[in-house]
Amino acid sequence: MRLSTRHLLGIKDLTKEDITIILETARQFKEVLQRPVKKVPSLRDVVVVNLFFENSTRTRISFELAEKRLSADTVNFTASSSSVSKGETLLDTVNNILSMKVDMVVMRHSASGAPHFLAQHIPAAIINAGDGINEHPTQGLLDAFSIEERTGSLEGRKVAIIGDVMHSRVAQSNIYLLKKMGAEVVVCGPPTLIPKYIANALGVQVSYNLRETLEWCEVANVLRIQLERQNQVLFSSLREYNLAYGITRRMLDSLHKEIVVMHPGPINRGVELDSDVADSKQSIILQQVENGVAVRMAALYLLSGQTGS
Amino acid sequence: MRLSTRHLLGIKDLTKEDITIILETARQFKEVLQRPVKKVPSLRDVVVVNLFFENSTRTRISFELAEKRLSADTVNFTASSSSVSKGETLLDTVNNILSMKVDMVVMRHSASGAPHFLAQHIPAAIINAGDGINEHPTQGLLDAFSIEERTGSLEGRKVAIIGDVMHSRVAQSNIYLLKKMGAEVVVCGPPTLIPKYIANALGVQVSYNLRETLEWCEVANVLRIQLERQNQVLFSSLREYNLAYGITRRMLDSLHKEIVVMHPGPINRGVELDSDVADSKQSIILQQVENGVAVRMAALYLLSGQTGS
Amino acid sequence: MRLSTRHLLGIKDLTKEDITIILETARQFKEVLQRPVKKVPSLRDVVVVNLFFENSTRTRISFELAEKRLSADTVNFTASSSSVSKGETLLDTVNNILSMKVDMVVMRHSASGAPHFLAQHIPAAIINAGDGINEHPTQGLLDAFSIEERTGSLEGRKVAIIGDVMHSRVAQSNIYLLKKMGAEVVVCGPPTLIPKYIANALGVQVSYNLRETLEWCEVANVLRIQLERQNQVLFSSLREYNLAYGITRRMLDSLHKEIVVMHPGPINRGVELDSDVADSKQSIILQQVENGVAVRMAALYLLSGQTGS
Repeated sequence: MRLSTRHLLGIKDLTKEDITIILETARQFKEVLQRPVKKVPSLRDVVVVNLFFENSTRTRISFELAEKRLSADTVNFTASSSSVSKGETLLDTVNNILSMKVDMVVMRHSASGAPHFLAQHIPAAIINAGDGINEHPTQGLLDAFSIEERTGSLEGRKVAIIGDVMHSRVAQSNIYLLKKMGAEVVVCGPPTLIPKYIANALGVQVSYNLRETLEWCEVANVLRIQLERQNQVLFSSLREYNLAYGITRRMLDSLHKEIVVMHPGPINRGVELDSDVADSKQSIILQQVENGVAVRMAALYLLSGQTGS
Repeated sequence: MRLSTRHLLGIKDLTKEDITIILETARQFKEVLQRPVKKVPSLRDVVVVNLFFENSTRTRISFELAEKRLSADTVNFTASSSSVSKGETLLDTVNNILSMKVDMVVMRHSASGAPHFLAQHIPAAIINAGDGINEHPTQGLLDAFSIEERTGSLEGRKVAIIGDVMHSRVAQSNIYLLKKMGAEVVVCGPPTLIPKYIANALGVQVSYNLRETLEWCEVANVLRIQLERQNQVLFSSLREYNLAYGITRRMLDSLHKEIVVMHPGPINRGVELDSDVADSKQSIILQQVENGVAVRMAALYLLSGQTGS
Repeated sequence: MRLSTRHLLGIKDLTKEDITIILETARQFKEVLQRPVKKVPSLRDVVVVNLFFENSTRTRISFELAEKRLSADTVNFTASSSSVSKGETLLDTVNNILSMKVDMVVMRHSASGAPHFLAQHIPAAIINAGDGINEHPTQGLLDAFSIEERTGSLEGRKVAIIGDVMHSRVAQSNIYLLKKMGAEVVVCGPPTLIPKYIANALGVQVSYNLRETLEWCEVANVLRIQLERQNQVLFSSLREYNLAYGITRRMLDSLHKEIVVMHPGPINRGVELDSDVADSKQSIILQQVENGVAVRMAALYLLSGQTGS
């Protein structure tokens, strides 16, 4: 089992077979994570550098745990303590780190395309941990893993992606992946937060009506309203957003079925998702987090070149 | 040897036997730390997350060293690089980290009771590394360890706790522990820095007179004046504090005995403690720091569930 | 093979034989770094604390990688998350960390002489990772290693050090080392950036003319203009600096020979060095970075006391 690619830059570049291999490998690692001893020696003597040019808690920790469970050595680099403030170019920073003979790079950057640019210039395997508003492929993979785990399969599954689709790399990676695996996708949100040509460009349906979307879907992946990036006024207030697009207990109870609720975190409770939904049995939010470590172990392992013959 | 508790949230919850077990285990680990090879495999394959929502040098490094001496894998999390700034609740942050299958959590938080709240919601073992003005149990334990090591026993020992008792979690953990182990405790400081009902509530004596206190005690645990938290004016100036409650060489020399001087650090030299006291043979300040690693190894080991049958 | 010193505080204190031992050991470690498995067990069970009181990317990561390649345990300490802001003295901070029984300290500090001061007070081996405007000995060593690797030897080599010599610890460590090993050194830059008595004090020649310097030298070590420290106006503008002392492709092509170009990084492209020079075959900048890990492994190994009989 070998991927068609040396890097994990985005779901867009993966084949259906690649995705299947990663998800299958992740299932094996998830099994390892249920054991009392959760560590395997697969990446012993491999050094992974976590290059986070943007702040992150869960993604960095999830990758670091995945690396340590695989027995890799890790070096952390965050922008705030970096030479970036000294005016160095991104390529210089990364070339320098790579000259130190690191084996793999996990990279988050605010510029869309940053890891793709680097992949053209450096020999180490790169995993994109989120680039601007482009992709967040391991999130797409862990979401798919979680949907499959809860519902049995991705093929033909009806998945709604709800909220700020415009600024969401999570949405984009999910759409690419779900379409490749044969799921149906509706994106739903206020018109200001849905990209204009997304229906044609990505083959999804667009809805501005939350109730209709929820009545249609089996799985609702609720995006985070990125309060900290909300410089422009794209909706009138958090209260009004909650009234129009927030997922409430009452709305879910009024449907004639039980849908699966997902969220990439961190949750703004009472904005895009109410607490009695987030913490209910319908929610698989914490399973997503758990699966994230297994999926990242799979990606690291498959790209490490340690996979045998 | 097994503790009566799954967490180390505060000394208040420990039995006398718990304390004895931890101190005895710490003595064994201190012996390990004198060897050329200071590492033991006790926590191999255990992942400990250090959750520091408040800045810290010595406590974080002391825990991290303890974890590494026990062969644990460590992941560090500090508030500044966290999702806390993205408006996530504490419970969400911690639940997310725990969903990643970490085994133990060491946590410092500015809110009193934060680790207790979490212990009700999460399965992993929690060690409180300081919560608000409530407790700092490993500091209480290392102080007790250091007193016992220097003076032979805690039973009947006369210990003075001097300074800003009001805002000190160190004082509180010390008092709980010393009283449980049969020591006598006097708290001493300006009336504005001594809680009003402490004598009845915690069974200690209160003194506002430094000289009398020093003449009474065998051990003086001098608290740090927390300059950075001194928003209210609780004493007139640092100079006047030093004149009234600072421990000077001259004052110690005028006593008819040699008392043991302790300080949890970092020291404000020339404020609560003069340099020629801090650096004298009477001072066991650096031994406290050394013992801190052994005590934390003991706590981590005993709470890890790796202690055999 | 044993060094004449217990610490690596500066090149000034090393004998010619010390330097030869370190460079020879680094050559062996560089060979290790070319292997698929780059890790050796030399410092297993040794704890190294990286004390960075100044920001750094490449130096900290280079040391951390060197430590991990040697199987050491590492603890990172950066000033921003430290007790330094709580008003603790440097000696107290370090004494505290050392009481925790760490084995080695790698230290960067903005005060010239800080590691020398500590070496007088503490037992652990100290490696200076840059102190103020004094020395940066591992940079001097990796520069020498890189020159020797590219040109065959240091003896008699004509090396120019170009730019802000005044504020550069890199320049100072290079000069000490190159002179000890028998190289000839010219320092070149605007008069405001060359210390007044350097010719007599360090036995180098001074030139204010870049073209003449380049025509003379075989190796040009181009210093970084430290934009972030440029409080005083020491030259009129970056544009004018580039015109007078920037290394351009055109200037190098007009010489009747090919000189080797070095830079300690991070590069200000278009200021002290043009991109088509930095990225050319003449440049050994990325080799310097690579060699840095090997040289630091050598220094850590030789000072660790793990070197056998």
